[in-house]
Amino acid sequence: MKQNADIGVVGLGVMGENLILNMESKGFTVACYNRTLSKVDAFVRGRAAGKNIIGCRSVEELIGALKKPRRVMCMIKAGRPVDEFIAAVVPFLETGDILIDGGNSHFSDTIRRTQEMESKGLLFVGAGISGGQEGALKGPSIMPGGSPGAWEWIRPIFQTICAFTDKGEPCCDWVGSDGAGHFVKMVHNGIEYADMQLIGETYQMMKDGLHLSNAEMARVFARWNQGPLDSYLIEITHHILNYKDEAGRCPLDRILDAAGQKGTGKWAVAAALDVGRPLTLIAEAVYARFLSALKEERLAASRSLAGPRAVSEKEPAPLVDDLEQALYASRLVAYAQGFQLMRAMAAQQGWALNYGRIARMWRNGCIIRAAFLDRIKEAFDAEPDLGNLLLAPFFKKSVKKAQGAWRRVVVSGVQQGIPLPAISAALAYYDGYRTARLPANLLQAQRDYFGAHTYERLDKPRGVFFHTRWTGRGGNTASSGHAFG
Amino acid sequence: MKQNADIGVVGLGVMGENLILNMESKGFTVACYNRTLSKVDAFVRGRAAGKNIIGCRSVEELIGALKKPRRVMCMIKAGRPVDEFIAAVVPFLETGDILIDGGNSHFSDTIRRTQEMESKGLLFVGAGISGGQEGALKGPSIMPGGSPGAWEWIRPIFQTICAFTDKGEPCCDWVGSDGAGHFVKMVHNGIEYADMQLIGETYQMMKDGLHLSNAEMARVFARWNQGPLDSYLIEITHHILNYKDEAGRCPLDRILDAAGQKGTGKWAVAAALDVGRPLTLIAEAVYARFLSALKEERLAASRSLAGPRAVSEKEPAPLVDDLEQALYASRLVAYAQGFQLMRAMAAQQGWALNYGRIARMWRNGCIIRAAFLDRIKEAFDAEPDLGNLLLAPFFKKSVKKAQGAWRRVVVSGVQQGIPLPAISAALAYYDGYRTARLPANLLQAQRDYFGAHTYERLDKPRGVFFHTRWTGRGGNTASSGHAFG
Repeated sequence: MKQNADIGVVGLGVMGENLILNMESKGFTVACYNRTLSKVDAFVRGRAAGKNIIGCRSVEELIGALKKPRRVMCMIKAGRPVDEFIAAVVPFLETGDILIDGGNSHFSDTIRRTQEMESKGLLFVGAGISGGQEGALKGPSIMPGGSPGAWEWIRPIFQTICAFTDKGEPCCDWVGSDGAGHFVKMVHNGIEYADMQLIGETYQMMKDGLHLSNAEMARVFARWNQGPLDSYLIEITHHILNYKDEAGRCPLDRILDAAGQKGTGKWAVAAALDVGRPLTLIAEAVYARFLSALKEERLAASRSLAGPRAVSEKEPAPLVDDLEQALYASRLVAYAQGFQLMRAMAAQQGWALNYGRIARMWRNGCIIRAAFLDRIKEAFDAEPDLGNLLLAPFFKKSVKKAQGAWRRVVVSGVQQGIPLPAISAALAYYDGYRTARLPANLLQAQRDYFGAHTYERLDKPRGVFFHTRWTGRGGNTASSGHAFG
Repeated sequence: MKQNADIGVVGLGVMGENLILNMESKGFTVACYNRTLSKVDAFVRGRAAGKNIIGCRSVEELIGALKKPRRVMCMIKAGRPVDEFIAAVVPFLETGDILIDGGNSHFSDTIRRTQEMESKGLLFVGAGISGGQEGALKGPSIMPGGSPGAWEWIRPIFQTICAFTDKGEPCCDWVGSDGAGHFVKMVHNGIEYADMQLIGETYQMMKDGLHLSNAEMARVFARWNQGPLDSYLIEITHHILNYKDEAGRCPLDRILDAAGQKGTGKWAVAAALDVGRPLTLIAEAVYARFLSALKEERLAASRSLAGPRAVSEKEPAPLVDDLEQALYASRLVAYAQGFQLMRAMAAQQGWALNYGRIARMWRNGCIIRAAFLDRIKEAFDAEPDLGNLLLAPFFKKSVKKAQGAWRRVVVSGVQQGIPLPAISAALAYYDGYRTARLPANLLQAQRDYFGAHTYERLDKPRGVFFHTRWTGRGGNTASSGHAFG
């Protein structure tokens, strides 16, 4: 067999197949392999028929079909299967060969695998890929990180098959070393969770608060998609609300309101706990999915627990335009928190993340693609060390303009008893972030009271700790503190 | 040396010393050891002088001083030190001896250690202890779990040195197998986080929204402590607000509003992610501590980010009585979520938790001790399988009564720009929990749209999955779904 394939892809799920077809359509010859060999046969005889796609019946055959250095990409289930595949393929690889994990691996696994592979003279890449099956076929957002030496070898392929911005820039760029690519993909997914939850709350407010029909809501989302909310998720919400089956019914109304999840949202929440950054919107989105899944409990509770009294006529309902502003401001907070998480983790891991480039990678191809990522890119281009997106001039002004509407929406939800956990968490974060003095002084006093945890003082340098004997009139003492509660 | 000590305690930190003095004061002879021997000497010559406390200069000497079966309790830093101590002491133990970890270990470590110890014929107990240093000395809440055979041997000591309810019942009972005790302690600490955050938000509302002085707030908390909010944390908040130093100043006003944390709050959040239960209040409390710690950022943001326009005169400020109701209802939600987390984890781990007994263990001695734990115990005594505390008749009625005030407080916070992340998250949870149809149907439609994740239907049995080709008018198809976004 000639060693002429540009890349080998392992795993013929929907994502793997579509990526292969994407690569082949851009002029690359692709060798493919799947542990269940019938899948290889079916693919080669089916969607891959007549194309420069080589079906292989063993890992050895796959490696033998590749140009050197070999580029091998696995598109398989995250976790143990990836480690098993690595163990199976490594004996066939040579120094300088490149292994790419294009699945949804946890970034800590990718950190470990990069180290293991580099210690063997091999190169490893963890590439986050977003865009669903259609994106994989037509051009996804690709977020690769890992062994830096791999980039020059995978760049010609990845920056060809990926999505592009309107200006023709690829939505794929080198993210950083070891787990940086998978980490950024994880944050992407977290923001996706938050954005979907925010859209869901807006939908519930329109449906239960403003009593709009699906057709009316579809028109609202279509209009929003022409403005600052322009984005894929708004667009598909419009399509979903507009969709009618053969009988002329909207399937949306019959879909069970119990959400599933695959775990990357939870990972983002856990990562934020590790680095100590508030990630309230993604957390509320994850929790909202949990709560939705408790459908039977909620049904019982809905019959048992009281709601508010009818809202008085004096309270004007928020306008649809208010919802647009509330959604926009809340979405911005979701991104602001996501970028803060990235900054904190980059500092911990020693990654030199380029936040403007990350915004560009998300500009197209992926699920959270949105017009305002151009504004985010501009903000980081203007100020690469921008601490919080909310402080960028454009967004500062946007939120200032939006906040009256934002507050009206939350107030209306509270008064009507319509749950808006993410929109109200976004506002609470905004108000908390701009509050010079939070009540944590009382909290520190409590901790010092019951656990002698000590506290710092506003009028003294940081790092000097004081303890008060609160139960007597003993005055303050400087102390190193030692106890637990 | 005579083998006559009832128990050996290792680790002479504040908690260890106080527990030893507590045990000795109740008639037990205690042997003690500390790796840094000077601490043993100082303790024996100091606070332990003249008491039935035996200082030991090696692990071997400690074990030799104990009655059989030996009861050895370590009060040392969680994590690796506990494993190191176990490795050091095991060679001296015999079948049936009991090792007790009284520190803040993660329950998964306790599960592992219990298995390891039992495989050696030894008994292991992970005992959560709350009450701070004063509790340790005078009677803490103790939550032991682990090898069931250990309970008969440690019960005479633990149910003597613990706190007691007003009715004389011990605030210590057997929680369950392996990690159950440390898990319940972790949930206790999470609720402690939430309760402290809720009190902090109430304080901020009184201070910045109602412009009350410390003295006025102290009187409010003192009054609240006579009613349904009667609890240790309300009591110490009253003391803190009342406390004046020699110069007549309230130290509270000079304490830096940047909160620390030791990690058990984060553990609770992570555990809730694992079992898929919403734990929004504890999460918001953890995040609020993170946000508080970003003091410099907040100072900059406070000068830069706009707040709401002045609230119109027509909007009445909430009353102090409203705050009491909001705090009460929110605190109840924190407990409801905590008990839901315990139910879900108990099911996963096979623990037979008795929730009424857990409420009684928390009734005194610990940081979250509160009068309304009697109501919680009554609720679980009446209905051991109660799915959610909010559904218990007493609490249902309480929230119904509180909710008007609760909503007014959140509305006022939103309108004034005062952040109430936990109080508003509590309300959003309440409204979400009693909502029969959440917007997760739209979310499932979105996931099916971009990732072919499929969905279930309201009008079909659970477990039957449908997929719609949303981009065409193709109708629904039943499908197994296979893709990722």
